[in-house]
Amino acid sequence: MKKFMDNDFLLSSDVAKEIFASCKDTPIFDWHCHLSPKEIYENETPRDIAQLWLAGDHYKWSAMRANGIEEKYITGDASPYEKFKAWASCMPYLLGNPLYHWTHLELQRYFNIYEPLSEKTCDMIWENANAQIKAGGFKPRDLIEKSNVYCVCTTDDAADTLEYHALIAKDRSFKTKVIPAFRPDKALGIELSGYIDWLKALEKVSNTKIDSYTTLKAVLLTRIELFEKMGCRATDHAFTRVPYARASEDELNAIFAKRVAGETLSESEIDAYKTELLRFFAKEYHKRNWGMEIHIGATRNNNTRMFEKLGPDTGFDAIADYEVSENLTKLLDSMDVEGFLPKTVLFTLNPKDNYVLSCICGRFQNDDAVCKMQFGSGWWFNDNLDGMREQLKAFANLSAIGRFVGMVTDSRSFLSYPRHEYFRRIFCEFMGEYVDKGMYPYDMEILSKMAQDVAFYNAKNYFNV
Amino acid sequence: MKKFMDNDFLLSSDVAKEIFASCKDTPIFDWHCHLSPKEIYENETPRDIAQLWLAGDHYKWSAMRANGIEEKYITGDASPYEKFKAWASCMPYLLGNPLYHWTHLELQRYFNIYEPLSEKTCDMIWENANAQIKAGGFKPRDLIEKSNVYCVCTTDDAADTLEYHALIAKDRSFKTKVIPAFRPDKALGIELSGYIDWLKALEKVSNTKIDSYTTLKAVLLTRIELFEKMGCRATDHAFTRVPYARASEDELNAIFAKRVAGETLSESEIDAYKTELLRFFAKEYHKRNWGMEIHIGATRNNNTRMFEKLGPDTGFDAIADYEVSENLTKLLDSMDVEGFLPKTVLFTLNPKDNYVLSCICGRFQNDDAVCKMQFGSGWWFNDNLDGMREQLKAFANLSAIGRFVGMVTDSRSFLSYPRHEYFRRIFCEFMGEYVDKGMYPYDMEILSKMAQDVAFYNAKNYFNV
Amino acid sequence: MKKFMDNDFLLSSDVAKEIFASCKDTPIFDWHCHLSPKEIYENETPRDIAQLWLAGDHYKWSAMRANGIEEKYITGDASPYEKFKAWASCMPYLLGNPLYHWTHLELQRYFNIYEPLSEKTCDMIWENANAQIKAGGFKPRDLIEKSNVYCVCTTDDAADTLEYHALIAKDRSFKTKVIPAFRPDKALGIELSGYIDWLKALEKVSNTKIDSYTTLKAVLLTRIELFEKMGCRATDHAFTRVPYARASEDELNAIFAKRVAGETLSESEIDAYKTELLRFFAKEYHKRNWGMEIHIGATRNNNTRMFEKLGPDTGFDAIADYEVSENLTKLLDSMDVEGFLPKTVLFTLNPKDNYVLSCICGRFQNDDAVCKMQFGSGWWFNDNLDGMREQLKAFANLSAIGRFVGMVTDSRSFLSYPRHEYFRRIFCEFMGEYVDKGMYPYDMEILSKMAQDVAFYNAKNYFNV
Repeated sequence: MKKFMDNDFLLSSDVAKEIFASCKDTPIFDWHCHLSPKEIYENETPRDIAQLWLAGDHYKWSAMRANGIEEKYITGDASPYEKFKAWASCMPYLLGNPLYHWTHLELQRYFNIYEPLSEKTCDMIWENANAQIKAGGFKPRDLIEKSNVYCVCTTDDAADTLEYHALIAKDRSFKTKVIPAFRPDKALGIELSGYIDWLKALEKVSNTKIDSYTTLKAVLLTRIELFEKMGCRATDHAFTRVPYARASEDELNAIFAKRVAGETLSESEIDAYKTELLRFFAKEYHKRNWGMEIHIGATRNNNTRMFEKLGPDTGFDAIADYEVSENLTKLLDSMDVEGFLPKTVLFTLNPKDNYVLSCICGRFQNDDAVCKMQFGSGWWFNDNLDGMREQLKAFANLSAIGRFVGMVTDSRSFLSYPRHEYFRRIFCEFMGEYVDKGMYPYDMEILSKMAQDVAFYNAKNYFNV
Repeated sequence: MKKFMDNDFLLSSDVAKEIFASCKDTPIFDWHCHLSPKEIYENETPRDIAQLWLAGDHYKWSAMRANGIEEKYITGDASPYEKFKAWASCMPYLLGNPLYHWTHLELQRYFNIYEPLSEKTCDMIWENANAQIKAGGFKPRDLIEKSNVYCVCTTDDAADTLEYHALIAKDRSFKTKVIPAFRPDKALGIELSGYIDWLKALEKVSNTKIDSYTTLKAVLLTRIELFEKMGCRATDHAFTRVPYARASEDELNAIFAKRVAGETLSESEIDAYKTELLRFFAKEYHKRNWGMEIHIGATRNNNTRMFEKLGPDTGFDAIADYEVSENLTKLLDSMDVEGFLPKTVLFTLNPKDNYVLSCICGRFQNDDAVCKMQFGSGWWFNDNLDGMREQLKAFANLSAIGRFVGMVTDSRSFLSYPRHEYFRRIFCEFMGEYVDKGMYPYDMEILSKMAQDVAFYNAKNYFNV
Repeated sequence: MKKFMDNDFLLSSDVAKEIFASCKDTPIFDWHCHLSPKEIYENETPRDIAQLWLAGDHYKWSAMRANGIEEKYITGDASPYEKFKAWASCMPYLLGNPLYHWTHLELQRYFNIYEPLSEKTCDMIWENANAQIKAGGFKPRDLIEKSNVYCVCTTDDAADTLEYHALIAKDRSFKTKVIPAFRPDKALGIELSGYIDWLKALEKVSNTKIDSYTTLKAVLLTRIELFEKMGCRATDHAFTRVPYARASEDELNAIFAKRVAGETLSESEIDAYKTELLRFFAKEYHKRNWGMEIHIGATRNNNTRMFEKLGPDTGFDAIADYEVSENLTKLLDSMDVEGFLPKTVLFTLNPKDNYVLSCICGRFQNDDAVCKMQFGSGWWFNDNLDGMREQLKAFANLSAIGRFVGMVTDSRSFLSYPRHEYFRRIFCEFMGEYVDKGMYPYDMEILSKMAQDVAFYNAKNYFNV
């Protein structure tokens, strides 16, 4: 029996351990996350471990709800200690849940605490961790630097001023690059109730009256130029269902006018708007050699009662299961055929589509870049041991795994960098199994290069940061 | 090489064996099966092992057909011995099929026979088993008691009189609880040819003229009250495709009238009827704190020729692959938003939907119960080593596996209780792997509690029996 | 650590090795491939290993594109050596890709080369392999005979003259049977742009004016009779989406006339034509006891730009994800109910449908044949270690794996026979795991028979060759 989460955690063979040793100290490039540039800039010491862990982490909230914990102890008015205790009481039941490992990796790496968290150890860990936080070293930038992070791409709305990015950039004392990623979901979300408000925000920030689709594009182009100035190299888009419908500029102006007038759009109008606006974006990304991330298959805010109480991003999103192959292929082909398909990373929330997406990537590879089309790492509900292995298999079987741009945290928490370590262990074990079973040569020169590439250098080169 | 199906069957590590030892004698709560209350009440000695095994088990029939066995030896007029011999001849080809293990577990546990069944051992086992049956101890209640069954929930139609449940309840000599589960599929099946006949049966048993949807609900409420009186705690519903469409009481009365008049309903009318009647049921379940089971994705009677010859439940059902996420989410949300979503167990016949269903469960958890929303165990075509592991992974990754209500037999056979043992071994091996690989602490207090909980106590508490 | 791809490659237990030893020298029956009968007849020595490997293998082309190789070195005008070098440079990045194993199996078995291919070994292997090719023994028939191939079924269009089959049959010096398989995809592809040209080719080869659906069927029947004369036992059909719609002969004649007149057909007209023509074929297959293969779920030519440059079958096909269960069930049932469902092998390109297809097979089994309905081996994007294991699991769990007709190369290359060895190793490891873990008895009489059956005899008996 292996010891609980020791140095060789997740590594079962000597060769896996050797490969991991060669890449574990490689820097982190976190090219997709939801960290707040404001928080990075303001750099405040957290109040306690409850704030660090439980103030905004809807993964943990979901797990607590599954354990029957009262909402009071999750997002309600219970004290930080009570919330922490409630979380501790859930831990033992989470065998096989990635939160179990993430929690303990964070305790080990940031707090040097090796006890399993449970109701029994709750008070001891509460006091120990909080004493350490108080002693210092737990501000956002401390945690980022301690984690050996080379660069962070935050996720920013097209109407964002990027003011905190400017402030961070001015501060030469902080070595980690913090650059924005362009996420124009609100621009694409013409069917959503917040669209008009977002349009007003965009008008305000751009000081331009947006009275047509044509003007909207012109304004969005100025935003892209701002993002470019701030160092942007990556973009992101979320689609519950992948759209594909074509329309002329006149038609798009008519759709836009209809929406602004408060009329209801048809599904095909919505799809046409999304398709053509994304195509417009793609063309601009391609010009700038930016990477285009597409996250497919999240359904949002499925619990009406809790959405009205807590708002979005509180643990009530789920996995869609729409057909994806036909529209996604047509969408990418429509860009490729006109010569402006950017480098693209496709993520799926539904693991049934792993092979479909990995295969579609293969249909649009060319020498624009090494592994131009990437099947993204196990995302959200797949961001666990099983999901990551399945993603690796689908990538490796249908593409060249040595070219994979690897892991992202996709996180709102400054404590989540051990997820890169978790991924690296899983990837090194994956490689190690092939070698250990005689399915790949034991050539440490190649193996360690590949491990370091997937851990860091492929992403660095791909996004050209 | 491990010995064939010995004491450590399916258990590869010391810790897995230790965990299994701690839960193997825990009682069984079989909260979903198709045992006949009439047969339990009448408690007759079976004629021979062919009757026990081959008289009604369409799993075995399917396997025999796959081996090219003539139908005569399956459901035809061959002698019991000939049928048993035909079955024995198929056995060696069933490597990797759960029937191979179920068959041998049943031979081991009920007959103390440890020889693998094949054409060679056929006669020996036929004689040995039949001699034991003749010697006694193989009546339904013998088998149930020998299997340490605390409670059985049979599956009963809303028009059922529950007379045999009443008779069993009166007999104090039988210690196992036998309670009905409410399965109103025939009430929901407005599109099926048997609906009108079922309505007549309901009129008869309720002594009420059912001339509207409103009256139908009133009568169904009296049935729910009867089930409640008889100790019902669980309900069950099967949907090939999950419906979601809303309608007013007037519209529902119109749909009902149309159906009774013999007119064809549109798909949206059928969906509205199903949706609203299920919502009505759910409200009543919630009042009574009953658990609602939903089995999604079986297509029925796919072989017309054999259906005409043998009728339903003879081995010709298959797996649907309709989209499930959108409608299922809306259906559950429509209950939750009005405050009457009952405790719910969601089963899928299509393993591609494991993560979708497990994820949807998470969207409706709250403190109504510990793990109120459960992703049900590997069902039917997934009720095997691989399918059960995949279900466990999808549950564990997205919820709290320590809260899982565990296994059901879903069986028509009194010999099928070793499927609980099979599940327990698989679950203990699942836990054991985490511990053995250093992914979960070796803490037998927690581990044995969790194993016993999943084996029995979680279900007992969940259904409050 | 096991040595790289040694004698025990993929075999982890003693029993797996013992089982493999018992079946490794069993002949190969390659009942589905895309070898050219013309090339078999002409039997020319290849120019070099680049021609053997890279002239037509779109699997390798895809992998090279994923590595960012310029198209010039893939399908362009680079020299054979440059292309080989480009391929060698990609190899190390293909950990986990079946090409990595196929490439080395081919080097080992045909060239006795045991070095891993990479840029470092590129020149040495280029020279060694080419010297061997020059020395002889690498003509198509040499490679087929060296691979111990009992029979090859090529894949031939309904309008094919089969002239090369006739020529091969006359040559008594070549022992391997080479028979055509009837693949009337162009007859079924009424919606495709090439349909009219194909019709003209059929008119020419049959010397008949085809002016109606009724005449078309009559002509196709003469083709079936020709294929029968040439020894055909297997047929093949590819559907992106499984059609099911019914129509009368009059309606079909009208659909045919509409198509010939250049009008656009509706989706339901296309489906009706496909359904009824396939039913016509099935009836004829059933009469002749032919096996019907159906390959489901490939989308073709997804990259418009590359299709216009390179044409079909160049690495731009992908995986569809349409619903398959309902139509496929109805299609097969429509044949079964009229008594002419042939022996059928169902393949899926989308692994999400493994259990759906394996399950549907079970619904149409009967004593027409042993395991009349077969879920086909891991195909194309699933033709790898993981995909094959998943297919085996889905087959074994829901059917009788001992009756499986096993592997096909599905290949255009005369070097691809080691894929049968690859499959056998995977299958023996699969069996061996059950035995080694005590889940199946250690009975070598049964195990070696089953391994040989799945490797060869089941297919031989099934197709009656």
